[in-house]
Amino acid sequence: MRDEYRLGDLAARFGGRVVGDPECKIRGVATLEEAGPEDLAFLTNPRYRDAAEATRAGAVLAAAGTRLPGRNVLEVPEPYAALAEILELFHPPPSRRPGVSPLAFLGERVGLGDDVQVGPFAVLGDSVRLGHRATIGAGAVLGEGADVGDDTWIHPRAVLYPGTKVGARCVIHAGVVLGGDGFGFATSKGRHRKVPQLGRVVIEDDVEIGANSAVDRGTLGDTVVGRGTKIDDLVMVAHGVRIGPDGLMAGQSGIAGSTRVGRGVTFAGQSGAAGHLAIGDGAVVAAKSAVFADLPAGSFVAGIPAVAHMSWKRAQAVLRALPELRARVRALEARLAALERQEKGD
Amino acid sequence: MRDEYRLGDLAARFGGRVVGDPECKIRGVATLEEAGPEDLAFLTNPRYRDAAEATRAGAVLAAAGTRLPGRNVLEVPEPYAALAEILELFHPPPSRRPGVSPLAFLGERVGLGDDVQVGPFAVLGDSVRLGHRATIGAGAVLGEGADVGDDTWIHPRAVLYPGTKVGARCVIHAGVVLGGDGFGFATSKGRHRKVPQLGRVVIEDDVEIGANSAVDRGTLGDTVVGRGTKIDDLVMVAHGVRIGPDGLMAGQSGIAGSTRVGRGVTFAGQSGAAGHLAIGDGAVVAAKSAVFADLPAGSFVAGIPAVAHMSWKRAQAVLRALPELRARVRALEARLAALERQEKGD
Amino acid sequence: MRDEYRLGDLAARFGGRVVGDPECKIRGVATLEEAGPEDLAFLTNPRYRDAAEATRAGAVLAAAGTRLPGRNVLEVPEPYAALAEILELFHPPPSRRPGVSPLAFLGERVGLGDDVQVGPFAVLGDSVRLGHRATIGAGAVLGEGADVGDDTWIHPRAVLYPGTKVGARCVIHAGVVLGGDGFGFATSKGRHRKVPQLGRVVIEDDVEIGANSAVDRGTLGDTVVGRGTKIDDLVMVAHGVRIGPDGLMAGQSGIAGSTRVGRGVTFAGQSGAAGHLAIGDGAVVAAKSAVFADLPAGSFVAGIPAVAHMSWKRAQAVLRALPELRARVRALEARLAALERQEKGD
Repeated sequence: MRDEYRLGDLAARFGGRVVGDPECKIRGVATLEEAGPEDLAFLTNPRYRDAAEATRAGAVLAAAGTRLPGRNVLEVPEPYAALAEILELFHPPPSRRPGVSPLAFLGERVGLGDDVQVGPFAVLGDSVRLGHRATIGAGAVLGEGADVGDDTWIHPRAVLYPGTKVGARCVIHAGVVLGGDGFGFATSKGRHRKVPQLGRVVIEDDVEIGANSAVDRGTLGDTVVGRGTKIDDLVMVAHGVRIGPDGLMAGQSGIAGSTRVGRGVTFAGQSGAAGHLAIGDGAVVAAKSAVFADLPAGSFVAGIPAVAHMSWKRAQAVLRALPELRARVRALEARLAALERQEKGD
Repeated sequence: MRDEYRLGDLAARFGGRVVGDPECKIRGVATLEEAGPEDLAFLTNPRYRDAAEATRAGAVLAAAGTRLPGRNVLEVPEPYAALAEILELFHPPPSRRPGVSPLAFLGERVGLGDDVQVGPFAVLGDSVRLGHRATIGAGAVLGEGADVGDDTWIHPRAVLYPGTKVGARCVIHAGVVLGGDGFGFATSKGRHRKVPQLGRVVIEDDVEIGANSAVDRGTLGDTVVGRGTKIDDLVMVAHGVRIGPDGLMAGQSGIAGSTRVGRGVTFAGQSGAAGHLAIGDGAVVAAKSAVFADLPAGSFVAGIPAVAHMSWKRAQAVLRALPELRARVRALEARLAALERQEKGD
Repeated sequence: MRDEYRLGDLAARFGGRVVGDPECKIRGVATLEEAGPEDLAFLTNPRYRDAAEATRAGAVLAAAGTRLPGRNVLEVPEPYAALAEILELFHPPPSRRPGVSPLAFLGERVGLGDDVQVGPFAVLGDSVRLGHRATIGAGAVLGEGADVGDDTWIHPRAVLYPGTKVGARCVIHAGVVLGGDGFGFATSKGRHRKVPQLGRVVIEDDVEIGANSAVDRGTLGDTVVGRGTKIDDLVMVAHGVRIGPDGLMAGQSGIAGSTRVGRGVTFAGQSGAAGHLAIGDGAVVAAKSAVFADLPAGSFVAGIPAVAHMSWKRAQAVLRALPELRARVRALEARLAALERQEKGD
């Protein structure tokens, strides 16, 4: 049986306010479409207003001031943040099963914290160290000397090359590769000679990295992903990149070698940055854009090459108006020619 | 020894017509360049006409009306579809070897259909269910409660997170990750807090997903890939996306969170769509394009942001003509200035 | 204890010249920021000149003619190539541990060269052949009949589908998938029917392929990556593509089906090419660009669709100037109208 909460109690717990019936009983959380009379649904994006008006949900979690006549609304200042907390309340994380599978392979001098969990066919190379309550999924491979912090979760089949360091409370999803060689080749007479890649990958605390993403080791220095940065699926971080804390990299974005990214920088989906750049704190790179030059802090850029978002919008508008501009030039030419003929005829 | 077929018999079997010698013996299928006198080659793209004229093949499979003087031609209405059938005739799929490897790991309450095949080091978590004749490759990991339909093939090292559902007759290639957490974070005071991702991934029947692609689980509802949709390599489908039946997503394309994609929609290579959009039935998104707004059914769009393909073509043409337009404006300015001077002088 | 070299001896060894003190002792290589007085740092990109002036390094490796007053400089004609050699001197590759793990699975008729190394949970299917000193990482899966050349390194969890051939001295990084089915479907009445993919993937000698990249098998012919070509992470090479020798494909780039790529072609990051094209020797495709037509040898192209880089630069400049051009047209219209009124008034 699931837990049951009064809507009023949820409001008190999450710093919100009930518009409607505080006695309404909530036993779960669901989407607007799927919710039933004992579920709390949520409206965090105005696009879904119609669905919110049509929902069968017992109550709707929404931003303060959202009007949904005839509905019980749980108003909170930050609905998406409140949703995170409410989901944790109704759906505690899956229980761990501490223990090392007898089917895992452990090298020599492996250091295990308390209550670690290691799945079948996982490989822990020599001198690997796991922090307390670290979880290593089935088939994950941790190379020699890899170091995983407390409460970090390495999902099945992730690979940490030798020497990779992952901080505490990180989530590394399935198929992620950390510490593969950077793409460094010295080209001479048309042939490419490998430059040994000797740096490490260092993932700081509270980082999440999505499925099948890749972070390469540096040539000499380390590639670093800063504390609290969240990385989506199929993202590439090249050798020697340093990403500051609290950044976001959405799906299929990428950063080329040696670029330094400040604090709280956002790369939207399928965007990228060239190598050897400096990208200032708080910069935002729009989806599908490509940064080819340094960006000052607070930039909001779009396009290929990326320019200030306002300039990009204006250029798009002018582009759409081009056929009309061409017609105006043609008209001018005709009128001017007429005038010139007349002038001559004078 | 390989089977041998009369060209005339192949024509009868596949609803075609022989131009040339129906007695010609065919023992295999090969490319135009590599075919020998006992091979059938195929011409499905007019770019390869020269190769078709130079081929050593005994006969060429081609669309009705293709003229290849002096060659035996097997004319069919849909050559590429006929090729699929003919290849199956000459190259039956590799024989399966039913059985569960003693080196696989099976959790508790695993349900196995008849004649399943499970490779070494595969992991089937608790309560996993495999349909009849399902094939699980070496090192694949199926999380707790994952469900795989009849005749589905999961290639080596694919990962299905707990609760993932894959239909019948699907092909999931190596390295695919289904059900990783969606990229959902609530940002407050610059810090990103994880929103639990509790939905599932549901792959309907007859879907194929290429190597190293990733489909994320929804936040609350499911992420769904519709029946018969084919997905290429390194594609990303974000949380809460719903893709209709019979779609195509080519390599390195991606769809951001919660977007609804209709029936028979095509995403060409390296294209993408932003989140929370509605994309109508039969829409086609050109390669390298990005959809930032809803698309009506039957749209054919290109560009960043994607616009109607015709508008995109026109904009490209105008762009190329811009230097000339600028020159015309300069000429107008000079002529007008001359006229104005003259007028003043009058 | 690390080896120690006189700077003068390094110069003699690598064909360079010392500016400063040839007696300077070098015990390691480090970045400009991290180097100490016994380290050699390197300056291969003029962006880092300030760091080179501030470094604590005992000496700096740089191109001939680089002026760094007061510093010991090791001048060489090709600093990046010299760096590769010097790194190999100071950091010999990790020692291998020949032997087949008792936890690996070997099928029937597997052929093993001398001194191969096979990690735990690796799978070698029937008739797999490994050359001398081949290294197969933990959890890698080599399908039936796969063939790996001498001195090749297959990193953990790479997958070679049946029949894949990899040459000598290759490096295949973690998560790479070679030989997955090409994306070939015959569409009839809106349904997509799989065209069997029967060709192979052939990787020639001295190729490197980065983490989580995918190369698909051809429909009938082979997909080929030419000798010495280097491929970065998350790159896709579709079915039937043939890439010449000595090419470069940077991160997240991709090539669609059947395209032929010449010798020494460069695809920069996140670039792509459509299918069925011919791309000439030495062509360079700029980052984030998309090639939609054949390219002659020596092309340098950018944009979507990719055009000559100079044209692309010019178009960018004109685009930026568009608002001003529009203003000029508006001014012309006003002046012309005034003139016309005046003329009428005459």
